[in-house]
Amino acid sequence: MNGIDKIIETALAEDIHTGDITTLSVLPAPRRMRARLIAKEPLVLAGIAVAERVFAKLDPCVVFTPLFADGATLKAGDVIAQIEGDAASLLQGERVSLNLLQRMCGIATQTAAYVKEIEGTGARVVDTRKTTPGLRVLEKYAVRVGGGTNHRTGLYDGVLIKENHIAAAGGIKEAVRLARNYIPHTLKIEVETENMDEVGQALEAGADIIMLDNMSLDQLREAVQLIDKRALVEASGGVNLTTIKAIAQTGVDIISVGALTHSVKASDISMLMEER
Amino acid sequence: MNGIDKIIETALAEDIHTGDITTLSVLPAPRRMRARLIAKEPLVLAGIAVAERVFAKLDPCVVFTPLFADGATLKAGDVIAQIEGDAASLLQGERVSLNLLQRMCGIATQTAAYVKEIEGTGARVVDTRKTTPGLRVLEKYAVRVGGGTNHRTGLYDGVLIKENHIAAAGGIKEAVRLARNYIPHTLKIEVETENMDEVGQALEAGADIIMLDNMSLDQLREAVQLIDKRALVEASGGVNLTTIKAIAQTGVDIISVGALTHSVKASDISMLMEER
Amino acid sequence: MNGIDKIIETALAEDIHTGDITTLSVLPAPRRMRARLIAKEPLVLAGIAVAERVFAKLDPCVVFTPLFADGATLKAGDVIAQIEGDAASLLQGERVSLNLLQRMCGIATQTAAYVKEIEGTGARVVDTRKTTPGLRVLEKYAVRVGGGTNHRTGLYDGVLIKENHIAAAGGIKEAVRLARNYIPHTLKIEVETENMDEVGQALEAGADIIMLDNMSLDQLREAVQLIDKRALVEASGGVNLTTIKAIAQTGVDIISVGALTHSVKASDISMLMEER
Amino acid sequence: MNGIDKIIETALAEDIHTGDITTLSVLPAPRRMRARLIAKEPLVLAGIAVAERVFAKLDPCVVFTPLFADGATLKAGDVIAQIEGDAASLLQGERVSLNLLQRMCGIATQTAAYVKEIEGTGARVVDTRKTTPGLRVLEKYAVRVGGGTNHRTGLYDGVLIKENHIAAAGGIKEAVRLARNYIPHTLKIEVETENMDEVGQALEAGADIIMLDNMSLDQLREAVQLIDKRALVEASGGVNLTTIKAIAQTGVDIISVGALTHSVKASDISMLMEER
Amino acid sequence: MNGIDKIIETALAEDIHTGDITTLSVLPAPRRMRARLIAKEPLVLAGIAVAERVFAKLDPCVVFTPLFADGATLKAGDVIAQIEGDAASLLQGERVSLNLLQRMCGIATQTAAYVKEIEGTGARVVDTRKTTPGLRVLEKYAVRVGGGTNHRTGLYDGVLIKENHIAAAGGIKEAVRLARNYIPHTLKIEVETENMDEVGQALEAGADIIMLDNMSLDQLREAVQLIDKRALVEASGGVNLTTIKAIAQTGVDIISVGALTHSVKASDISMLMEER
Amino acid sequence: MNGIDKIIETALAEDIHTGDITTLSVLPAPRRMRARLIAKEPLVLAGIAVAERVFAKLDPCVVFTPLFADGATLKAGDVIAQIEGDAASLLQGERVSLNLLQRMCGIATQTAAYVKEIEGTGARVVDTRKTTPGLRVLEKYAVRVGGGTNHRTGLYDGVLIKENHIAAAGGIKEAVRLARNYIPHTLKIEVETENMDEVGQALEAGADIIMLDNMSLDQLREAVQLIDKRALVEASGGVNLTTIKAIAQTGVDIISVGALTHSVKASDISMLMEER
Repeated sequence: MNGIDKIIETALAEDIHTGDITTLSVLPAPRRMRARLIAKEPLVLAGIAVAERVFAKLDPCVVFTPLFADGATLKAGDVIAQIEGDAASLLQGERVSLNLLQRMCGIATQTAAYVKEIEGTGARVVDTRKTTPGLRVLEKYAVRVGGGTNHRTGLYDGVLIKENHIAAAGGIKEAVRLARNYIPHTLKIEVETENMDEVGQALEAGADIIMLDNMSLDQLREAVQLIDKRALVEASGGVNLTTIKAIAQTGVDIISVGALTHSVKASDISMLMEER
Repeated sequence: MNGIDKIIETALAEDIHTGDITTLSVLPAPRRMRARLIAKEPLVLAGIAVAERVFAKLDPCVVFTPLFADGATLKAGDVIAQIEGDAASLLQGERVSLNLLQRMCGIATQTAAYVKEIEGTGARVVDTRKTTPGLRVLEKYAVRVGGGTNHRTGLYDGVLIKENHIAAAGGIKEAVRLARNYIPHTLKIEVETENMDEVGQALEAGADIIMLDNMSLDQLREAVQLIDKRALVEASGGVNLTTIKAIAQTGVDIISVGALTHSVKASDISMLMEER
Repeated sequence: MNGIDKIIETALAEDIHTGDITTLSVLPAPRRMRARLIAKEPLVLAGIAVAERVFAKLDPCVVFTPLFADGATLKAGDVIAQIEGDAASLLQGERVSLNLLQRMCGIATQTAAYVKEIEGTGARVVDTRKTTPGLRVLEKYAVRVGGGTNHRTGLYDGVLIKENHIAAAGGIKEAVRLARNYIPHTLKIEVETENMDEVGQALEAGADIIMLDNMSLDQLREAVQLIDKRALVEASGGVNLTTIKAIAQTGVDIISVGALTHSVKASDISMLMEER
Repeated sequence: MNGIDKIIETALAEDIHTGDITTLSVLPAPRRMRARLIAKEPLVLAGIAVAERVFAKLDPCVVFTPLFADGATLKAGDVIAQIEGDAASLLQGERVSLNLLQRMCGIATQTAAYVKEIEGTGARVVDTRKTTPGLRVLEKYAVRVGGGTNHRTGLYDGVLIKENHIAAAGGIKEAVRLARNYIPHTLKIEVETENMDEVGQALEAGADIIMLDNMSLDQLREAVQLIDKRALVEASGGVNLTTIKAIAQTGVDIISVGALTHSVKASDISMLMEER
Repeated sequence: MNGIDKIIETALAEDIHTGDITTLSVLPAPRRMRARLIAKEPLVLAGIAVAERVFAKLDPCVVFTPLFADGATLKAGDVIAQIEGDAASLLQGERVSLNLLQRMCGIATQTAAYVKEIEGTGARVVDTRKTTPGLRVLEKYAVRVGGGTNHRTGLYDGVLIKENHIAAAGGIKEAVRLARNYIPHTLKIEVETENMDEVGQALEAGADIIMLDNMSLDQLREAVQLIDKRALVEASGGVNLTTIKAIAQTGVDIISVGALTHSVKASDISMLMEER
Repeated sequence: MNGIDKIIETALAEDIHTGDITTLSVLPAPRRMRARLIAKEPLVLAGIAVAERVFAKLDPCVVFTPLFADGATLKAGDVIAQIEGDAASLLQGERVSLNLLQRMCGIATQTAAYVKEIEGTGARVVDTRKTTPGLRVLEKYAVRVGGGTNHRTGLYDGVLIKENHIAAAGGIKEAVRLARNYIPHTLKIEVETENMDEVGQALEAGADIIMLDNMSLDQLREAVQLIDKRALVEASGGVNLTTIKAIAQTGVDIISVGALTHSVKASDISMLMEER
């Protein structure tokens, strides 16, 4: 219902289109086989239901048995799932299933690394809108599986007032007021700031969330103190596995990390087939 | 016509959905602005027409002026394009445009690195089906821009006979015969092999392309010699920037690299806005 | 981009399908005409751009000149817009254009009546999810034009914890905690309550918004006092033009009204054609 | 097959989109519950299969047991249906199901009131094209359930020659001739008239149906006499519950009523959930 | 609006899909050329606007100049249209454009032959629902261009009561009554009959159209006499160019011919390109 | 997965649209019936699974029992399949099912005639891109069932260098070189030639397939000799059942025949219904 079926159908159509001509010509008769999905490196599992759904879409007779649930931490060699069904269905679903699963595991694994880094600090790791076009719902899910949480889903379910909005409105105060009058009362308002002066204005304007963009650790600390729990504080920019801990220790509530989704190493997973 | 418009429409709908509420509330009146797309690190440009198309879809009045063409090698600080139009359109197109462009540049840049590594060897770098679901047409294009070439687009426009097909058909010879009788005469037949015996069988069966899967350098050399130009030779498996040169020097014709598309670091590109 | 084009295309296809056979047979040659959209009763205008878009979709050569903007208060006889173009296009767009415009004006007009009723009280009139399936984006827009604001757009961009959620979670406190950990930090959490005890629990749990469902005026007053600005207060249930003023005077912040969209009298508007 | 599934899918996507975040966060585990759909006021039931289909689309395991069939006359308090299934599915289907059912019942109930008013007169109540964009097939069905019948579905399956068509063709006679030569022989031709002279011309031209637009009772009577069963007679304009009986008593065959679908009060129906 | 754009888009996507690789590789630079569409045999032109639309969809800069209008009778060698534009666009649109145009001309040409055969008899040639799936709107248009008229478009805009309907209803009279009560008053009712007894029943039941299915010429004559203008008479079954004249001379009003659309020889048309 | 479901859904929507009003009004109650699909003339069966799928889409409870498999040669009177289910489903699926099946059988039957004509010559009969827009996947399948094989599916999965490409590239050699550098290594390159000189150039350029366009038998023989197995040889143009044998005897490998799909006589098949 939330678009995942359409993602899978698009992916299968993209790969199979008018037909898997190798299998149609060489393996035309049904032939029941087994396959196993195997982790080839340590990873955090995310997307097992998506992998299963790919085969279900292709062939309702495929039996897919997950051996781990999303969120599980796997080591190299772990068998993720067993699959049994007609060889043609297994061969045709393999690549799409793995392409989705490997990407989702890659995101969850990377997110978990960021989350672990700041354990105990009270800060949250959140994603951004720097996701793969068309796959945002899956990628934001994988971030949650990895222990992160999500920023707004898109431009429609959150307000983030940036420099150009402020200039157009004639100031932070007016921008926040305009947004407050327009948006559902169920949404918070976030203002992007670049210095203490702007932080002060955002506070005064009644922003619910204040983003501190590309600030130094000292600036972050100063802003946290200034805001003093009157708004949520989000640090953004220049975050990586080396820098995140120090950023978290400044007392910010939320740290957004574009790399969670824009630069992902697919987890190494393969599908091994065997005669039944 | 080839699906790019649909990719862009899906991406814009995903991000904007019922409306960019920040801009609708804070910046409701038209306000003409300029923006520049700027490379923040060295990269091979790919996808400039896609980036342009995103803005054109949103607002036909945006003027997008590319300063480089696809394939250009850029350094940090280079201005990729100038954009001028209503601020709302620029703000709403920014993220989708960058998400696509950064990924395509990332792929082209990485491909170019692989291609450079094997310069002069006579081998080609090709991609695989390990692409982002829904974006294959863009990713395979980016590989070409980076100097690589493409493997089959999907299961429908190329034959790759693997172990399970061979088992089902009762041998490589029979598998090739079945495929040849079925497929358009415009397509070649490729057989995946894991040892010299299979290479020999594939040759005898009349395979047009022989894939050497996960073979050692010695095995690759032996296979190249055995095949002796009677079929195209493709090396596959375990290819990275460290290993590719030695693989190319064994004399294979084609080297397929999954990482070209499955593990991509988005190129760092940003959009700077300014009052006109 | 936000779905309006698709609504219009669906509506036109529904009405015209394989062709307007009356016009195709009787009026096959081009014939330039003029038409005027006329308010036949007092109304608040909403949807003029939608009406225009219907004709633009059918025929880019139709010239549509609005004489009022959305939000204008019109009296019977006012000319809303002038339209000029090929008679076939005018005849084919008339019904779809009016069906959309009349409904949107009906909503805006009704909303304005509710808003006027509570002028000066500090409360906001908001809509609900009781909208026409497929037209929510237009109907929520018409509510804004009429001076109301919107509740969450759907189940995806707002949290409303109801009785069954509370029972499943084992209490209001736990329910709020679970939601807080899961949702983007950009969203508020609303809890539906039916008595003072639940109001107290919701407050303590840190709910951002407390809905008072079907409470008497005395209960509303008591709840407002108890909450004391620590959360937004929303009154819901049994709201109509007779009761809304007294409800607003209890001091609640927000009053949600299903009837704004679920029971709408189309505004009376007609299109008059004339030879040019 | 006739578009109802698409209406439901669109409505569910509109409401749920990327996910019901309240239920996903607070009620993640399955929890079997029961619900009842209850009429809160007297109504004519229409759309029970549509309500059922909403839940079936969401979750094939929901068991929906209708206690009345479409066309039944219900009183306040009647239980329309029992539903049993996972709480999440019930909560997610509730609003869409009710939005459709309440509107369809509203139309059927209103239509039944019009039909009852003219009982015994031999006239039929028919709808118009003034339907909710996208929902015409459901609304025209509800009219039939309420005892009315339908006018043409759209511009493609019926001919209605209006003033502008006549002007363009150069007269009623020529317009009817042009239409007759063009359209399938399975369709009738209707001509809209505003005075006795036009009625006479339409008759002479061989119109199958003559619409009397906005005529007085005296004019209607005169036209009925003039036509004398040689064509079907349709009265249109200014029809409401107060005027319809007198109109019917003039002897017209058909009375078309825009309000059946353009101004509908949703029937009051609610869904009550309970632990099983 | 009536589905033609979707037919063209589907056809272009089917043919071009991810790209015309010959042109992309060999002819990447723009190169303005001219082409002519030439009739290679006598034909009745139908679909010129469809052919034009194919190129317009591909490339708005193509200039397409029709030299004849639909309905024109062409001889071998006639130039149907001149086309000028980028060579890539011409090459990519050629096949889809011709596939549609040749089929439509084939239908119009064949229909014209049937129509000519019965000239002066007062009977009409009509098509059936035996059309190419997905192309019905174009094929029924081509029948009209060829001088025929259309039977109902589909199951939704006409009633044809057949043997099984009659059996289920318990007789022709009851079947007609049920249909009359259900359908829009704008539609006629047709009954399929196989002998004089059924013809009599259909007449008595008030059928608007009576189909005489697979009757001999004598039976047709007898039925025409019996019906005596009280209903339209349609002959069906066993109609071809040899038999149609005699059938028409029996006095039937309408003769339906499945072969008009189900067995079509594409008209021979080719596109010649030349340097400008 | 390969588009067949969409073809069927489009065809059913085209025919049924808002509902089969005859059946809805006259046959509203379920009524289990049987039907048989019967060949009315000799034919090669193709598309039985498609015919079955039409009914399955409409109503999963229909039981469709094929009595022959695709490729079977049937004589007049043979029962192709038995169908049992609700009368409404049988009546509503009949036309779409037959429209598809009759066309596919027509193609397979015609192809089989061509194939039989050249039996023993070693040549293959192949189709072209002259297929019905939207149905290519079904028509190319029917060609295979009839014993033919397929040319490229579209412009995307095969290279065919024609006169204009050669002119633009500056010669056959350069055209082949450009294509080779661009396309996947899994595809062959075909060059269209019109005389011996061009054949020689194509050979020298390394074309994998050489098309001999509209050549005389003598030219074909000369070209076959000249090419001498160094490329596949395809004859094209002027092929019909009278000429194909002589063409095949010249030694060409492949003969492409547009008429296989562009001019098809639907096989005569009917569906007989009977009470169970």
